[in-house]
Amino acid sequence: MLIMAINAGSSSLKWQIYQMPQEQQIAHGQIERLGSQNAVFTAQYGQGQTFEKQEAITTQELAVTLILTRLKSLGIIDRLEDIQGIGHRIVSGGELFKKSTTISPYTTQKIEHLGELAPLHNPTEAYYIQVFAKLLPQAKQVAVFDTSFYATMPAVNYLYPIDLKYYQRDHVRKYGAHGTSHRYIMKRTAQLLHKPVEQVNLITLHIGSGASITAIEQGQALDTSMGFTPLAGLMMGTRSGNLDPSILPYLMEKEGIFKIADLMKILNHKSGLLGVSGVSNDKRDLDEAAAAGNKRAQLAQDMFVNRIVKYVGSYLALLKEQPDALVFTAGIGENDPDLRWAVGQQLAHLGVHIDPVKNQVRGQEARISTPDSKIAVWVVPTNEELMIVRDTYELIDNKKTAL
Amino acid sequence: MLIMAINAGSSSLKWQIYQMPQEQQIAHGQIERLGSQNAVFTAQYGQGQTFEKQEAITTQELAVTLILTRLKSLGIIDRLEDIQGIGHRIVSGGELFKKSTTISPYTTQKIEHLGELAPLHNPTEAYYIQVFAKLLPQAKQVAVFDTSFYATMPAVNYLYPIDLKYYQRDHVRKYGAHGTSHRYIMKRTAQLLHKPVEQVNLITLHIGSGASITAIEQGQALDTSMGFTPLAGLMMGTRSGNLDPSILPYLMEKEGIFKIADLMKILNHKSGLLGVSGVSNDKRDLDEAAAAGNKRAQLAQDMFVNRIVKYVGSYLALLKEQPDALVFTAGIGENDPDLRWAVGQQLAHLGVHIDPVKNQVRGQEARISTPDSKIAVWVVPTNEELMIVRDTYELIDNKKTAL
Repeated sequence: MLIMAINAGSSSLKWQIYQMPQEQQIAHGQIERLGSQNAVFTAQYGQGQTFEKQEAITTQELAVTLILTRLKSLGIIDRLEDIQGIGHRIVSGGELFKKSTTISPYTTQKIEHLGELAPLHNPTEAYYIQVFAKLLPQAKQVAVFDTSFYATMPAVNYLYPIDLKYYQRDHVRKYGAHGTSHRYIMKRTAQLLHKPVEQVNLITLHIGSGASITAIEQGQALDTSMGFTPLAGLMMGTRSGNLDPSILPYLMEKEGIFKIADLMKILNHKSGLLGVSGVSNDKRDLDEAAAAGNKRAQLAQDMFVNRIVKYVGSYLALLKEQPDALVFTAGIGENDPDLRWAVGQQLAHLGVHIDPVKNQVRGQEARISTPDSKIAVWVVPTNEELMIVRDTYELIDNKKTAL
Repeated sequence: MLIMAINAGSSSLKWQIYQMPQEQQIAHGQIERLGSQNAVFTAQYGQGQTFEKQEAITTQELAVTLILTRLKSLGIIDRLEDIQGIGHRIVSGGELFKKSTTISPYTTQKIEHLGELAPLHNPTEAYYIQVFAKLLPQAKQVAVFDTSFYATMPAVNYLYPIDLKYYQRDHVRKYGAHGTSHRYIMKRTAQLLHKPVEQVNLITLHIGSGASITAIEQGQALDTSMGFTPLAGLMMGTRSGNLDPSILPYLMEKEGIFKIADLMKILNHKSGLLGVSGVSNDKRDLDEAAAAGNKRAQLAQDMFVNRIVKYVGSYLALLKEQPDALVFTAGIGENDPDLRWAVGQQLAHLGVHIDPVKNQVRGQEARISTPDSKIAVWVVPTNEELMIVRDTYELIDNKKTAL
């Protein structure tokens, strides 16, 4: 059985195809600048084969049609009918979707309505569901929500200290993000630790251009740094994370920013590592600049580490017992030994000891702490697409589908 | 020598008089609803004597004149000339004032200019300095800043993860608050621990209707929960603390709040314990309501504790070694055993053990942790006025005055 994972953005579409239950990836690809005359279609498949073409891809229908056509014409699959399941990454499940779910017209509509909480994502994702239903009608579709892993958080952690009516009436709460990644990491780490998943206590650090840290207690999310939106929590590549709210009106007045929406763009796209360093949002560029003596680049790096350390500390306090491990994942977490080392150094007095040799690992599963480290530290590469495919396979296999 | 401490608000004026160097308080009082026809003038002095009068006090000049006149007419002091120093609490010292300082026309002007950062306080405080200079010209005046204790914080903690130009050009940074209280607590706790102040590592918890937590390393502030303004950090009586910035534009649109200034009023005055509970911003009212089964009152309390626990955890991680003590102070911190107990319970797995009997103390200095608690926990009542008086006495006594 082939299962396809779909990750749709406003101007991009990423896909992967897995052979199940073997969990064997047989192809993946993406369309960038979707909606334009010079979109870029790429696919990787077979034994390292690639296909790439710049072309006009102006609609979502055309995008999906091209993918399906080329899956056949490139010889990746024999018959489209072999794709029996399509798993969609959905950014917001609001409070409605507490786990992955098979798609019905009702769920599609609800996903679209949740666009109120994720206006750049949910409506697009709901639209792709309809496109696939039309173009690949025999495939069963499943929605996998970034937020559903956080359905177990207690109110004390998901509520903000503001008037409760803003939660009751306007649904302002902490929804979390990167949930599929943290869930994958939790399950994989439980395997690596030879513990039942419902017994693991972890602090998972998804550190990429977006970044979030989750406290996991007994296999459930207890708290997370991401909030009402993915602007929250940690300092990120271009995002500020949480702020003293008073900064917003002050900056608007001082800088002559008339619309708060314009300030939100600044906080989302011109802040974080980029804003502090003035150099780049990419930690690799900052490493280089800092090594060449750029003090702002070094400062940005130091602040980035500092915020991670403080969140880890807050979750070490919040968890009722010492976690089984701290787990680094995602672009930076998997591939930046310096970042992991710096975090470890600052946590050394709490018994976190990273082995400098083991820490050199990049993009591979490894325990990087020393044998005597009070808290184990792991690197576990994330795989959100596999998680989506697994959920899809499981729901289809169990005949729970509705569409 | 008599020293007077002045704490001026926009519609209130609090004062205390100490005999120095004995540190003996001889009188204190306040004017409330200052600026109105029905202001209330109160004074406590002597052996429990009190004076109270409701009257029109429409200007700051009249307020100060009344205080000085009644100090004599009530027999509190013999001659106004005995007041040799006046210490003013100043809310913002910006980045300019790194410690308490004698007042010159230059400093007065600077204090006024810093009204940009504390518009409700600094201009009023600067004005009172001028009123006292006119009405009590022989007294030397000293400014004691709420922020100066935080002058030692490293950039990695005082900067926000936003474009650095907003710091360089607009001075957006973490300034802290309650600095005079945290400084007093640090010095007093060092004495209680028989350690030189420059060797103490503490986490000081100033928990009142305003609340802040400070990490102190080697007698210097390392980080604090208060930020650019006193809206930052922890959940408070009516304040939200830090937020996902995206909540602001969302609430403005959903709730039809057209001016961000109106939203700031909500976040400052209708949030925190009051907003979540819908009952009160006073923890005592919430205790009562929660005991009577009000779930929102209990939730508000739980969130309040939760935020304290997470900040303490983040500072336990940030400090390079285990602190000598956690120290509770201010209205709630000194007088609410339940709050301290709840915080202690959640930190128990980190070796914090509060003695339930010793913890019953209210408004008194006491070590409330058990002998085997890995981290000591203390209650130390704060005394910002005494700190102001001490600074004033020291600067006057050393002939460093300028005015």
